[in-house]
Amino acid sequence: MRDLLPAQVATRDWATGRILDVYGSYGFTRIETPAVEGLKVLLGAQGGENEKLIFKILKRGEKLSAAAGADAADLGLRFDLTVPLARYYAHLHAGLPQPFRAIQIGPVWRAEQPQKGRYRQFTQCDIDILGLGSHLAEIELIRATVDALAAVTLRSLTVRINDRRLLVALVRGAGFADADGGAVLIALDKMDKIGAAGVHAELVARGFGAAQATRFLASVEEIEKRALAGGAELDWLDLPVDRGVIDALGAIIRAVQADRVAWAGAGADVEVRFDPTLVRGMGYYTGPIFEIGHTGYPSSIAGGGRYDDMIGRFLGRPVPACGFSIGFERLVEILEEREGGRALGRARTKVVLLVDERLADMSAALAEARTRRAAGAVVVLEARSAKNTGRQLYQLARDGFEEGRAYLADGTSEDLAPALREKRTPGGEGGA
Amino acid sequence: MRDLLPAQVATRDWATGRILDVYGSYGFTRIETPAVEGLKVLLGAQGGENEKLIFKILKRGEKLSAAAGADAADLGLRFDLTVPLARYYAHLHAGLPQPFRAIQIGPVWRAEQPQKGRYRQFTQCDIDILGLGSHLAEIELIRATVDALAAVTLRSLTVRINDRRLLVALVRGAGFADADGGAVLIALDKMDKIGAAGVHAELVARGFGAAQATRFLASVEEIEKRALAGGAELDWLDLPVDRGVIDALGAIIRAVQADRVAWAGAGADVEVRFDPTLVRGMGYYTGPIFEIGHTGYPSSIAGGGRYDDMIGRFLGRPVPACGFSIGFERLVEILEEREGGRALGRARTKVVLLVDERLADMSAALAEARTRRAAGAVVVLEARSAKNTGRQLYQLARDGFEEGRAYLADGTSEDLAPALREKRTPGGEGGA
Repeated sequence: MRDLLPAQVATRDWATGRILDVYGSYGFTRIETPAVEGLKVLLGAQGGENEKLIFKILKRGEKLSAAAGADAADLGLRFDLTVPLARYYAHLHAGLPQPFRAIQIGPVWRAEQPQKGRYRQFTQCDIDILGLGSHLAEIELIRATVDALAAVTLRSLTVRINDRRLLVALVRGAGFADADGGAVLIALDKMDKIGAAGVHAELVARGFGAAQATRFLASVEEIEKRALAGGAELDWLDLPVDRGVIDALGAIIRAVQADRVAWAGAGADVEVRFDPTLVRGMGYYTGPIFEIGHTGYPSSIAGGGRYDDMIGRFLGRPVPACGFSIGFERLVEILEEREGGRALGRARTKVVLLVDERLADMSAALAEARTRRAAGAVVVLEARSAKNTGRQLYQLARDGFEEGRAYLADGTSEDLAPALREKRTPGGEGGA
Repeated sequence: MRDLLPAQVATRDWATGRILDVYGSYGFTRIETPAVEGLKVLLGAQGGENEKLIFKILKRGEKLSAAAGADAADLGLRFDLTVPLARYYAHLHAGLPQPFRAIQIGPVWRAEQPQKGRYRQFTQCDIDILGLGSHLAEIELIRATVDALAAVTLRSLTVRINDRRLLVALVRGAGFADADGGAVLIALDKMDKIGAAGVHAELVARGFGAAQATRFLASVEEIEKRALAGGAELDWLDLPVDRGVIDALGAIIRAVQADRVAWAGAGADVEVRFDPTLVRGMGYYTGPIFEIGHTGYPSSIAGGGRYDDMIGRFLGRPVPACGFSIGFERLVEILEEREGGRALGRARTKVVLLVDERLADMSAALAEARTRRAAGAVVVLEARSAKNTGRQLYQLARDGFEEGRAYLADGTSEDLAPALREKRTPGGEGGA
């Protein structure tokens, strides 16, 4: 976990504001859930590996004395925003619009080994549409997320789209047993990183026959080749799957591709394609899945899909659900790298008013501060350092103050702009 | 802890935006610290009662197996934003502007018994000036906080100001031993709620002589009477305390009172006065202390003061520090009560586009959504319910949609504004 400096928070607030503005225009509204959930909620939601990374909270008071060992904890910090959303919707759906479009942006916690670029507290930014079974949900989620990424000036994006049911059919078509599907897909998921030969080796290492692995990878390669060449027409796909699955996938890709012209007009180059090797890790996806990557970065910066079964686990009846999550930390990393530490956000004139401590009546300084703030400037009042005026002005110039005034003990005042300008020039410090 | 509905988050975001805007104009910049701190940090900062309310986090992996009982936890959720700020500043001060003006807004956690209006996760909104010993810090903190409260439309405010050192002198002047000061002030702090007779009874119950208690309360009453009558001139104060303490207090009150005209111009009625009975609970205050109340609400909505000794506990050398904290939950409660559940924030036209699922080409609907969003509207795309069109329109009208269009299976479209208007009129539901 880490502390954030003012420039880091400014960039994050800028990005958050732009993303929320775009999502708001799509009819999403922000909700909040507590950081802490009951362990029963967190452990009952197919969170996979993440469940092992929960920070657990000790019981309090008498409950603690009565408990021991693994039983000593009853609460935990949330490890994602999807499980709390499902619990939230199950409790509150009666008072929510139908379908419900939620934005969540907030911290989640995972007790991972700390390493470069990976933190144990990090921010996620999710949108979800609950209660809409139509593939309009997927289309809107993808369009909104591309719009949001373009709004934070990520301008070279690739949207990859697949469907979990196609993956199942692909595995089945290659002669694998349904029970082996998970293991085969875990291997396929690594195609990006280890290539076809690596996936083949992993399948064999997992005990599958070499011939079967070869056959599977050949069929993947064949589909991938046609997917890369073709557009949104997927009629050629010959897989043991309901025709509606392929039609919906084609409709989603077609609709998102239609936006490429609008994005190009806004300066964003967006590629949109069917990717039969896209797997996505989470076990809870049931239909279309999608990721967005940014040119020059190996990992995706947003991922999501349809998870029609999860809310039913909390509510007792099925509710169609579909979501898209921006990896906010990765996004901020890209922005910070590009800006070289310069904070993004509104630039405002910075004014310093230096007040001599012996001055009995500060009303003129206080009035100037009020007037200039009302006119949009950032104004700080500081005690004037009589001994180290030069050093004080140097530091103020370094911190971005370009205008100012000194209120002196004798009741007169002095414009500081020339001195601040001088201190900003190279060698200016020596002038103190 | 609780879930927040979209209207609640909208009001909170609106208030946060306005407050941050005001604080930004005073040169404060936002920082963030993690929700989780080491227990050693949390337990070593004079947090008083709050230390008993820490949510403790279980050790992980091998460290857990090796530990037992009270030793099983090594981390905790922060119970305020001041202790983490002191730790932050001690670590990072070399890279921060001097003096440093910090805004923090975020959740804190306390394992209290849940009760109405009190939550175990709640938001605090603090500003602090670190490294400025001058009473300019107090003046700016108070002005900024009144400005912020006025910006969120709290328009009838009372600022009460005192100094911890005056309280100590008052207690000493009444003949109490210095070691009894804490107990006497705890009793005095209840003046608001139980009156002078109640405080007297409590002092006697705590073992102090009735005559001494009477003498003490008489001196408090005398000072209070003159404080209520007088302005910022405190020359009449005859207490065993350094003259500079009284002069600074007078200067702070005078400077803040001078802003009353500007506040009145902005529609806010602000009373500013010296209150010798103001105590503030936290043990770490060392100088001026202050609170802001809102007419009609018994508890204060903001409180703060100078705490020059705390950062030294982390850094090893003293750093002057002064802060002001808005009770964000109480503020939101006042706004929600006044608005009767209506969310504060920007009102945008809400448009619904209903798309028939049989429509193969949705490009016209998608293009209209893009155009209207670009023009500032909130637009949602939904699947058109062929069977229950009336009910669907009724729900949309109820959720605030005033404009819309239906894209029908035959490729034609239909303006929905008249139907939505009709559904909004009383009895409109029956028209379905």
